[in-house]
Amino acid sequence: MAESWSFLDTSEPNFKPLVVIELAKGTKKETVEWFTKRIVDKKANGGAQLLVKPLATEDGDETIYLVGASHLRLLLGAETVGLVKECNDNSMRTFTYSSRKTFKDFADDNHNFLTMAECQYIIKHELENLRAKDEKMIPGYPQAKLYPGKSIVRRLLTSGILVQIFPLHDREELKKLRYTWYGRVKVGYQPLDEIRCYFGETIALYFGFLEYFTFALIPMAVIGIPYYVFAWEDYDKYVMFATFNLLWSTAILEVWKRICAIMTYHWGTLLMKRQFEEPRPGFHGVLGINPVTGREEPVYSSIKRQLRIYLVSLPFVCLCLYFSLYVMMIYFDLEQWALDYHEENGSNFSNLMLFVPSIIYAVVIEIMNRIYRYAAEFLTSWENHRLESSYQNHLILKVLVFNFLNCFASLFYIAFVLFDMKLLRQSLATLLITSQILNQFAESLLPYWLQKRHKKRMKKRMGSLKTDTDLSLVEQVNLEKEMGTYLGTFDDYLELFLQFGYVSLFSCVYPLAAVFAVLNNITEIYSDALKMCRVYKRPFAEPTANIGVWQLAFETMSVISVVTNCILIGMSPQVNALFPDSKMDLVLTVALVEHLLLAIKFIMAFVIPDKPRDIQIKLAKLEFESLEALKQQ
Amino acid sequence: MAESWSFLDTSEPNFKPLVVIELAKGTKKETVEWFTKRIVDKKANGGAQLLVKPLATEDGDETIYLVGASHLRLLLGAETVGLVKECNDNSMRTFTYSSRKTFKDFADDNHNFLTMAECQYIIKHELENLRAKDEKMIPGYPQAKLYPGKSIVRRLLTSGILVQIFPLHDREELKKLRYTWYGRVKVGYQPLDEIRCYFGETIALYFGFLEYFTFALIPMAVIGIPYYVFAWEDYDKYVMFATFNLLWSTAILEVWKRICAIMTYHWGTLLMKRQFEEPRPGFHGVLGINPVTGREEPVYSSIKRQLRIYLVSLPFVCLCLYFSLYVMMIYFDLEQWALDYHEENGSNFSNLMLFVPSIIYAVVIEIMNRIYRYAAEFLTSWENHRLESSYQNHLILKVLVFNFLNCFASLFYIAFVLFDMKLLRQSLATLLITSQILNQFAESLLPYWLQKRHKKRMKKRMGSLKTDTDLSLVEQVNLEKEMGTYLGTFDDYLELFLQFGYVSLFSCVYPLAAVFAVLNNITEIYSDALKMCRVYKRPFAEPTANIGVWQLAFETMSVISVVTNCILIGMSPQVNALFPDSKMDLVLTVALVEHLLLAIKFIMAFVIPDKPRDIQIKLAKLEFESLEALKQQ
Repeated sequence: MAESWSFLDTSEPNFKPLVVIELAKGTKKETVEWFTKRIVDKKANGGAQLLVKPLATEDGDETIYLVGASHLRLLLGAETVGLVKECNDNSMRTFTYSSRKTFKDFADDNHNFLTMAECQYIIKHELENLRAKDEKMIPGYPQAKLYPGKSIVRRLLTSGILVQIFPLHDREELKKLRYTWYGRVKVGYQPLDEIRCYFGETIALYFGFLEYFTFALIPMAVIGIPYYVFAWEDYDKYVMFATFNLLWSTAILEVWKRICAIMTYHWGTLLMKRQFEEPRPGFHGVLGINPVTGREEPVYSSIKRQLRIYLVSLPFVCLCLYFSLYVMMIYFDLEQWALDYHEENGSNFSNLMLFVPSIIYAVVIEIMNRIYRYAAEFLTSWENHRLESSYQNHLILKVLVFNFLNCFASLFYIAFVLFDMKLLRQSLATLLITSQILNQFAESLLPYWLQKRHKKRMKKRMGSLKTDTDLSLVEQVNLEKEMGTYLGTFDDYLELFLQFGYVSLFSCVYPLAAVFAVLNNITEIYSDALKMCRVYKRPFAEPTANIGVWQLAFETMSVISVVTNCILIGMSPQVNALFPDSKMDLVLTVALVEHLLLAIKFIMAFVIPDKPRDIQIKLAKLEFESLEALKQQ
Repeated sequence: MAESWSFLDTSEPNFKPLVVIELAKGTKKETVEWFTKRIVDKKANGGAQLLVKPLATEDGDETIYLVGASHLRLLLGAETVGLVKECNDNSMRTFTYSSRKTFKDFADDNHNFLTMAECQYIIKHELENLRAKDEKMIPGYPQAKLYPGKSIVRRLLTSGILVQIFPLHDREELKKLRYTWYGRVKVGYQPLDEIRCYFGETIALYFGFLEYFTFALIPMAVIGIPYYVFAWEDYDKYVMFATFNLLWSTAILEVWKRICAIMTYHWGTLLMKRQFEEPRPGFHGVLGINPVTGREEPVYSSIKRQLRIYLVSLPFVCLCLYFSLYVMMIYFDLEQWALDYHEENGSNFSNLMLFVPSIIYAVVIEIMNRIYRYAAEFLTSWENHRLESSYQNHLILKVLVFNFLNCFASLFYIAFVLFDMKLLRQSLATLLITSQILNQFAESLLPYWLQKRHKKRMKKRMGSLKTDTDLSLVEQVNLEKEMGTYLGTFDDYLELFLQFGYVSLFSCVYPLAAVFAVLNNITEIYSDALKMCRVYKRPFAEPTANIGVWQLAFETMSVISVVTNCILIGMSPQVNALFPDSKMDLVLTVALVEHLLLAIKFIMAFVIPDKPRDIQIKLAKLEFESLEALKQQ
């Protein structure tokens, strides 16, 4: 490969800007010069060998730089990051520059072989892997220390010299994508492959999961409707419904793994080798030797971290859980007060008043969830995890536990302490619907409206009211750099997770929940799409092969729902009537059924293969080929 | 590597026999000539490049051939099979011939760098991978068809021309091993590393597990003794014992994974790449194209196999289960009869008679288990699985389900239908002790006695009564080829699995079970060691990184034992006395506790890392290095 790097020319006539770098105002000239030199410098000299152009902003200050790369550079970068592409024989293979001719649609002059999202991902990877050589500090900023091997971009970011790096939107492509995605009223699938090409695999997989989950809920919704319409109160019918639900929810989670494998196989991420994980940007510690790499880098004692987790974070989370339960008890006082009021007055107004406590409580829950979210982020970041993945796992665990209790504790209390099925149904409906409305509003519509207002003002300031596609590059960059940053799929998955809880935990009491979930998800697809295309800066693509820890979270929820549904059915008057003589027999029967259902769940999860047979064969074929290649060596 | 093969000389002065090939009597001369030529032929000509010598037997018929290899050939073979060895810097790395100087204890004249077991494994691998080129059949046997790529040795075996291939014992080494293993009375660990060097990783890991499991049972046994001595019948003490047991059994299974990782890391098998799995010898079908390898080989429709599994095997297993339950009911009739007899007579003899039905039943269970085992093997082989691993999984599943029901059904019936704790304790003790005695006898002592008698007769026939080490090679081979074949660790693990069931399923009723298990396991180590060293032919070493499906089986058993123990405690009079008013509350409390314990189990399994931190770091280091090496390319 050494030869390939040498015939790489760093200056190319048709420079296409891909990524924007915004430096802080008043960054010293020597720093800028050093940084841009490092970016364009030859690979052999430790540079990134990319192209950089300054962008003149309206106030004449050169703080914005556009980064691009020659076609050849991007192809070599694709090899470095280990992209997997489709070959001429329809198999998926790791791209290498030397075997480039065997790949589908490859031609030396076809600049669309790599998608724009892939090109931007490559540039991000190369920028982040631009490492200090013998610099002891960032030139011009003696307090921003460097050591050999430290990522320059990360140090620039943490010391505030670099404000942000973000990929540019492609106005033409975006317009096409918007049209096929949500621009016309249609019944059908989302253009997942186009979404993946534009936004990358993580986001496309979220939309894929959202769509799959919505389709999967439809049977539950369809079966649930007659229960509402005919006001079926026979619990034997509810038993049927609950049993169907439980097996169905296990099945859909298993089938999702297979569908996910098919999708990510064709996107190439299923085969992509995991890259070695560097420390996350926020990680700090005294300089030491990493036992794995043998390199000098900050180290932080694992015992200190454990102490922080168990002595600070854990008690804090417990306190928050206690507070959440305390708020719940206030809600029940309110509920009682509303009931008393209704009994005293008995008017239409007082009837309406019955729903007020639930609505207030739902709003409070949402607010508490959001405040806790910030606290959890702060705490997890303070725990100083070395790897982003470990940080994410600890954050997700904290947030999931709290959100689960905060959202469902009142329902558990109503169901298993108060035994009030009517109130349970009412609370469930109010919580579900209120939280859905709040979420749609806070997540997409409000930011959209703010963004629209901001854009209008910006355009007015620029003195033109052109359509998006007519904007000049300068205008586009200025517009995009002020847009909000998309913080990842965490909140979106969390919303789906809680919705899954509302639908499955008490499904046999409120079969209509699935109907609301389906309706919400259909609008959710549109509002999330709007949010991605209109509200936020384009996010960097992130290759991924599955939905990660969320699969586990959903599976845990479906195990818990087996337990709750069995208890609910056991408590119903109809089932009680089947055991007139002995409550013992009833409880024992319910426990037996529950254990059987759990056993069936685990056996199903074990028996259904995680990957479809043809994907298995394709993977085995690749493995066989690489073993054969090793033998030939 | 091409050069290395060429300077390999096939004839070497100091030929050391490693593996014995026994051909059928009267094998045609042309076949023998062709086969030996293929074995010694150069790699470039498609041969195995090994050394072969005929061994003159007493009757002058040349049916026994000894196979060896030059030191260089073995080193190249070690690279082919992907052996992992320790380097000079104490890290474990995949051996390659070119980097041989970096490995610990390597010297060109050190013929002990590879253990004898490794050499024999390499030769076995090379012989099995000796493949047909353009031969359409085995010369001299037109009915034994060949096709390009078919393993010659496997075809020779299936057509009965090749009787057996087995590795030779090393009398000197074996004597040393026997002495350190069981030759002297000592308290301490087994020489696992020596066992591994002599018998390979699979067998060493079994003995490692047996030893670990025995040590892990000691706390349970120690805590269990006072219950017996002081005849504690307080169920609050039993609750403590059962709770301890449950958490303990989860912990030991988790800790085993870590210990196993440490052992197999140092043996190199944790890092060893999985080889591509060839079809198992018994697999047959019409010639077709394998979609994975693209090679011509027998293919068998997966649908046909599924049909065989679900339409024949599954009903057969169910029938066997039904039959086992039927036998159980006969046992209860017998038990009733013995009780009536005792009540009528009331003598010492009739008191003894009370144990007779249990003992008879235990013997019948053992017999049924063994018969079923043959049926299961026949059926699974008839299902025609392509891979050995798939065959093993189906066989283990069949055998486990039947053995579980056969051994424990009567205990479940006594505990949860008859509610007779006294009978349960008595049955448990009788079953456990009888099955242990039977197993020790049938598995080791009987074969040992038969083998000893056979050996004496053989030696007498040879007209000498020399000690083992003085035997000539011819005598040794003749003696060993008549020894039984060790059929793998399956039965040994199964025995431990059932023992674990006896100890944990009803532990709170019979705390003494752990004591008997410990005593049995100590003698089991000795009798199994005796069996390996004295009774059977030396088995080929089989590299492995863990105990595979048995880990899952033990974990499932420990989940089931949570359920049974909770129910047993709930049924106890003392616990019942705590809830004098409401049986409902009792059942609900028991169910709650059970769910909590299960949740704790799963959280423990999730939280305890499967590999110790230092092994994790070593693995990460290797991964990092290989990623770096890829980048350098």
